[in-house]
Amino acid sequence: MSDVARLAGVSIKTVSRVVNDEPGVHPATAERVLAAIERLGFRRNLSARNLRRGSSTGTLGVILEDVGNPFYSVLTRAVEEVARTQGRQVLTGSSAEDPGRERELALEFCARRVDGLIVVPAGIQHGYLVPEMQAGMPVVFVDRPAGDVVADTVLVDNIGGTAEAVKHLAAHGHRRIAFFGDAPDIFTASERLRGFREGCARSGVRYGEDLVFMGPHTEAGVAALLDRVLGGSDPATAVVSGNNRITVHMLRALYHRPARPALVGFDDFELADLLNPPISVVQHDASLLGRAAAELLFARLEGDSSPPRRVVLPTRLVARGSGEVSP
Amino acid sequence: MSDVARLAGVSIKTVSRVVNDEPGVHPATAERVLAAIERLGFRRNLSARNLRRGSSTGTLGVILEDVGNPFYSVLTRAVEEVARTQGRQVLTGSSAEDPGRERELALEFCARRVDGLIVVPAGIQHGYLVPEMQAGMPVVFVDRPAGDVVADTVLVDNIGGTAEAVKHLAAHGHRRIAFFGDAPDIFTASERLRGFREGCARSGVRYGEDLVFMGPHTEAGVAALLDRVLGGSDPATAVVSGNNRITVHMLRALYHRPARPALVGFDDFELADLLNPPISVVQHDASLLGRAAAELLFARLEGDSSPPRRVVLPTRLVARGSGEVSP
Repeated sequence: MSDVARLAGVSIKTVSRVVNDEPGVHPATAERVLAAIERLGFRRNLSARNLRRGSSTGTLGVILEDVGNPFYSVLTRAVEEVARTQGRQVLTGSSAEDPGRERELALEFCARRVDGLIVVPAGIQHGYLVPEMQAGMPVVFVDRPAGDVVADTVLVDNIGGTAEAVKHLAAHGHRRIAFFGDAPDIFTASERLRGFREGCARSGVRYGEDLVFMGPHTEAGVAALLDRVLGGSDPATAVVSGNNRITVHMLRALYHRPARPALVGFDDFELADLLNPPISVVQHDASLLGRAAAELLFARLEGDSSPPRRVVLPTRLVARGSGEVSP
Repeated sequence: MSDVARLAGVSIKTVSRVVNDEPGVHPATAERVLAAIERLGFRRNLSARNLRRGSSTGTLGVILEDVGNPFYSVLTRAVEEVARTQGRQVLTGSSAEDPGRERELALEFCARRVDGLIVVPAGIQHGYLVPEMQAGMPVVFVDRPAGDVVADTVLVDNIGGTAEAVKHLAAHGHRRIAFFGDAPDIFTASERLRGFREGCARSGVRYGEDLVFMGPHTEAGVAALLDRVLGGSDPATAVVSGNNRITVHMLRALYHRPARPALVGFDDFELADLLNPPISVVQHDASLLGRAAAELLFARLEGDSSPPRRVVLPTRLVARGSGEVSP
């Protein structure tokens, strides 16, 4: 991409805008960029199977939502450890849940000829990777599946884990259970919501739309919603949080409340066991997720050409205290 | 490096062993690797100033102790954000506090022609980077300085921050204060120990070797040492922890104790404010550290040839409760 930028006399950002069909580029400039791409054979190079096969760059690309989020940093470290045993280095990039940014990073990594990609997809369209994949570059999707391509995927049991959280709370007598999830277009968020519904159905708990809050949550937003759902004439007595970020927002919002709802959070997090009360969680292993993805990738690099696999890792409910209180 | 390995018919690991002068390689094999390096002009390529100048690969290398540690993952994310605005991608690697691994990663990144390196040094010898630096590749050391080369460095005020922790505890009446630090050959650990001594001297607190514990700490190890130092006829009444990992070990060890010492930890960490009691810390900003390092690096890439700079970022004592108790 930097070669294209140099030839066209524009910034890399501009090239990326043109490639991704984003606004804000003058038509004449876009023309120049496209001509440079044509001349350098950017696309053609990318999909030149022979070239790809012949020369390993010894790098893997890893695209995450945010490398600063502890869950993903542990996942990254696990990928790095496997890559190290194979003499490979790891390129990382954070998509910040922006499909455009994910795509930009992925194409950048491909232009750098990474030997393979591990992607926590932000978007649901991955057709742009098909030429690469057909040219022999393995891609493993992790934590969430690709939207529209069939590829190796490593997931956790989002549905089963969330359903178990509901069952656990119901077993302690809760009948009004609220669910706070991430934006519903995120795969894990919609799966966990499905798990929440299934858990309610299996446990004889009424599922109410009025108790479900999906969306990008801020600390203040979570606090306001909790105030609403824990007040009124028919308050919720228990809450399921859809991920570790939401759980942390909740803990801050609940800190000064005298009476707290029962709480189970999806995702474990450091110090959960030292809080008062200790927080019950649906635990799964970010490290295992990273390792499984890296191992799948290396199997492909070593020639495994069996059909794409979907690995679903189990979750485990860890009862620590916050979920084991009566209404 | 992978080209060398291919030509010599050995693994990348073997090439790396030879380059780093590590044991375990048969002399005949080492000979073959060296011949391959010679033939491919590996070293010569690396230091070919013109080549380097002429072609940006658009990548930065970041070498950390552990990308899975929240402190470093936040730092990485900040580097990534700056790199992104400059159209660069980030290669990351974890040294695991092993100087050999750091060197191996750095040389790998150089062989991949990164445009620049940001290094949290594990070792104290960085002469191996001099040819690269002379060839025009900027290197910024962050969190700790290089041992034996003069280069841009971004640090935090370890001495001032730790001295302030002691002063704070002394102001609450403590006269027997223990210090748990990391291995003394780690720069930040020895600086913080120095800050602890200075803080004792300034606050009229007796500094006792018997109250200082440096070393790689495990959870069980910290627990045993705390038992010792908090018991006996003249127990410590306050503790300063040298980093966030040690603080977490301490919190686990102290969790079930009825009487707790006052505690101030170096490094802030998520949920410190929600623990019981909330944990007082010497706060500094991993994100700011990463940003400052990346900005220094990009200034160099843009031609800034002023003498190497040392930036020291301030710390801030955040009193939350655990440090504000009387003996």
